Amino acid sequence: MLFQVTMDVRIPLDADPATIERLKASEKQRCADLMAAGTWRHIWRVAGRYRNVSIFDVADNGELHDILMGLPLFPYMAIEVTPLCRHPSSIRPDDR
Amino acid sequence: MLFQVTMDVRIPLDADPATIERLKASEKQRCADLMAAGTWRHIWRVAGRYRNVSIFDVADNGELHDILMGLPLFPYMAIEVTPLCRHPSSIRPDDR
Amino acid sequence: MLFQVTMDVRIPLDADPATIERLKASEKQRCADLMAAGTWRHIWRVAGRYRNVSIFDVADNGELHDILMGLPLFPYMAIEVTPLCRHPSSIRPDDR
Amino acid sequence: MLFQVTMDVRIPLDADPATIERLKASEKQRCADLMAAGTWRHIWRVAGRYRNVSIFDVADNGELHDILMGLPLFPYMAIEVTPLCRHPSSIRPDDR
Amino acid sequence: MLFQVTMDVRIPLDADPATIERLKASEKQRCADLMAAGTWRHIWRVAGRYRNVSIFDVADNGELHDILMGLPLFPYMAIEVTPLCRHPSSIRPDDR
Amino acid sequence: MLFQVTMDVRIPLDADPATIERLKASEKQRCADLMAAGTWRHIWRVAGRYRNVSIFDVADNGELHDILMGLPLFPYMAIEVTPLCRHPSSIRPDDR
Amino acid sequence: MLFQVTMDVRIPLDADPATIERLKASEKQRCADLMAAGTWRHIWRVAGRYRNVSIFDVADNGELHDILMGLPLFPYMAIEVTPLCRHPSSIRPDDR
Amino acid sequence: MLFQVTMDVRIPLDADPATIERLKASEKQRCADLMAAGTWRHIWRVAGRYRNVSIFDVADNGELHDILMGLPLFPYMAIEVTPLCRHPSSIRPDDR
Amino acid sequence: MLFQVTMDVRIPLDADPATIERLKASEKQRCADLMAAGTWRHIWRVAGRYRNVSIFDVADNGELHDILMGLPLFPYMAIEVTPLCRHPSSIRPDDR
Amino acid sequence: MLFQVTMDVRIPLDADPATIERLKASEKQRCADLMAAGTWRHIWRVAGRYRNVSIFDVADNGELHDILMGLPLFPYMAIEVTPLCRHPSSIRPDDR
Repeated sequence: MLFQVTMDVRIPLDADPATIERLKASEKQRCADLMAAGTWRHIWRVAGRYRNVSIFDVADNGELHDILMGLPLFPYMAIEVTPLCRHPSSIRPDDR
Repeated sequence: MLFQVTMDVRIPLDADPATIERLKASEKQRCADLMAAGTWRHIWRVAGRYRNVSIFDVADNGELHDILMGLPLFPYMAIEVTPLCRHPSSIRPDDR
Repeated sequence: MLFQVTMDVRIPLDADPATIERLKASEKQRCADLMAAGTWRHIWRVAGRYRNVSIFDVADNGELHDILMGLPLFPYMAIEVTPLCRHPSSIRPDDR
Repeated sequence: MLFQVTMDVRIPLDADPATIERLKASEKQRCADLMAAGTWRHIWRVAGRYRNVSIFDVADNGELHDILMGLPLFPYMAIEVTPLCRHPSSIRPDDR
Repeated sequence: MLFQVTMDVRIPLDADPATIERLKASEKQRCADLMAAGTWRHIWRVAGRYRNVSIFDVADNGELHDILMGLPLFPYMAIEVTPLCRHPSSIRPDDR
Repeated sequence: MLFQVTMDVRIPLDADPATIERLKASEKQRCADLMAAGTWRHIWRVAGRYRNVSIFDVADNGELHDILMGLPLFPYMAIEVTPLCRHPSSIRPDDR
Repeated sequence: MLFQVTMDVRIPLDADPATIERLKASEKQRCADLMAAGTWRHIWRVAGRYRNVSIFDVADNGELHDILMGLPLFPYMAIEVTPLCRHPSSIRPDDR
Repeated sequence: MLFQVTMDVRIPLDADPATIERLKASEKQRCADLMAAGTWRHIWRVAGRYRNVSIFDVADNGELHDILMGLPLFPYMAIEVTPLCRHPSSIRPDDR
Repeated sequence: MLFQVTMDVRIPLDADPATIERLKASEKQRCADLMAAGTWRHIWRVAGRYRNVSIFDVADNGELHDILMGLPLFPYMAIEVTPLCRHPSSIRPDDR
Repeated sequence: MLFQVTMDVRIPLDADPATIERLKASEKQRCADLMAAGTWRHIWRVAGRYRNVSIFDVADNGELHDILMGLPLFPYMAIEVTPLCRHPSSIRPDDR
């Protein structure tokens, strides 16, 4: 089941750089694992913003919630979730 | 070059049903052609809304503009465009 | 899987009363059927507004979309969808 | 009498973790007590957000106010209250 | 139990003047009856707007809903409802 | 001359409790004095919010400004002012 | 007593030109009379908009309400009212 | 050439009182100088807010920018600028 | 003196096509004349919208107002005006 | 390919002045280099705001993203990006 998720990352100006770097590295690894598993289906950067647009493929709302709450950068993110479903015009088998 | 485009379709309550059906069929065909060409990369429905989220792959802003303005349902749509770029965390070769 | 759905009904002032009454009766029957099936789990009126707050229990986003698009009053509604999941503090077995 | 209440929890990044954990435990206990009493009728998590949607059953506006102001996490919450009433389409006896 | 209700009246420019005058007279009578009964506790005009701010004293949310939905001008109003409760600083016995 | 005033009180999480308690006591006394004088005509709490809805009866805009700016909790308040006038439907002599 | 009033004029595209011209002439005359009387103190156009910013000097909220509701173009206006008072920095005697 | 400027002053709760008092005195002097020069044409307080509405008469956009950026309280202000022009209904020679 | 002007064109679905085509041709000619005169300095389309972003170079606010109000498509436009001034970082002589 | 970019600069009141001055100087140099290269096509100040309106000419979304994220003042900016394309009414060869 697909969801569009936008993540707006807001690092406070006085955050400790070492902490942030560590969280970013951890976030990157978590993202890579979820992409390899097919759960984090797509991720794109929004040009000029510290923001991404992603597509998740999960079993249900609960799995999506657990994944997002567990992201290393979650406390620094403003997240918006949009439930998606297959469009009859799509010709791509994985746009379900 | 990728863009996220959301299209909110607003058919007036007093629109002529035959005209709308004809425009919808034409829109569906246009979408199929652009998907086959790889230009309209993805399309998903937003659950519970007459709205889609799409990803376009175009040469430049001008090509995107011409495509959107030429959609049969364009006069009935509220459109939002977001320029995207490749995210370093993506492992999918076509998320560029 | 649960979703909160708010439906804001907007009947144009010049709508044909007989048509609206027929649609309302049809909507009421559809709601009753879905409540009996356990799909439309809860419905409450918002005091002072022609608006309801509902909880749906569906298999996935696609089922929710088909149900909402098929409501007799759908063309007159502004709908908002919020994906929900079980809260660990809930003691009610059906708040999943 | 029923009210929908949404609670958006905003823990500052520099909050003392021990204090927050204590408040969360206290909040959880308070919620359990009110659920057992039938006052806090329902609670669901909003997927991907530190936010819940709840239904309260109280004697009047004053009781609702006292309960919400007394929640351990109240100083960290943005709260929205919507007065509800029974919908004639509901078939559930407790959706009053 | 008290509620603040704001009513924004929006008469379409092409409305039939005789119909509107009849509805206004009916609304005025209904307001007078509810004021005499103590239910419509206060009403003030907002300067420069076709809008009023009112205080209602009702038994519960349901009574408020039935009263507002039954107002002759309801189809022409945008209504906002705010549940109130007694403020400990009030010295007026009827500000409950 | 009447004005509706809404006051949203926002105490920072790190405010000194003793200072806030002193300001609240002072605010309560000031409110009592103005209510006794008939200037602060009504005050109600908004259910579930640290917010009140008040009605002031003042000689002019200037008097209202001086009163509001002089409130002990003013630096912690977001204030909205709405000029009111007598509604012809009111039957209460003091709703002027 | 001074108020800032902004008036946004919205003439429907299908309005009868003769009617609108008559109302505009009438509005212009009413404005001239109120300016001569010192009540409509200032009026400026907002560049690029069919909108004005005005300053009114009235006895009280009620007089302002009656004037604005009585403007010939009132049914076509969206109006915002802001109560003003003398600023201690002003050196102009009539900025009271 | 005239501009409406609104200035919303937001002094942080933890600002140093002596610094703020010094800046306010400096601001007041700057305002007096610009009023005497005819540049800061009008200033009014918005009732109940730490906000003013002003009219400036400047040679061009650049002069307005330099004046506003140079105000002692500029770092504490949220400013909105609206370009104005003479209204044909004005009878005051200085409303140009 | 420079202004940024955004024009959002909203042609009603039931507008007469011949009238609109005539107005568009007239608008195009007016734009060409103003560009040749150096007054309408720049114009760009916003990708995917019937909207343009323009830069005007005018003597004062009044000239800008007269030009915009006189555009053939003005009744169909929502216009936003932003006064600009030269940026010290610009190296282009005509960005004044 | 052209983009309109607006940059709203928000320097915290407690920022270290020396750091900010260094960043501003660095930003100014970066802007000069990009203007000389023809990438940062235009820049104007918004009158009365610490904000600029700019036009960028880049190869694609990715180049725009890298440039904006690399600006010395980026952490202090709120940025909005609008993709533009050539308007058929433009007579300037470089408005492409």
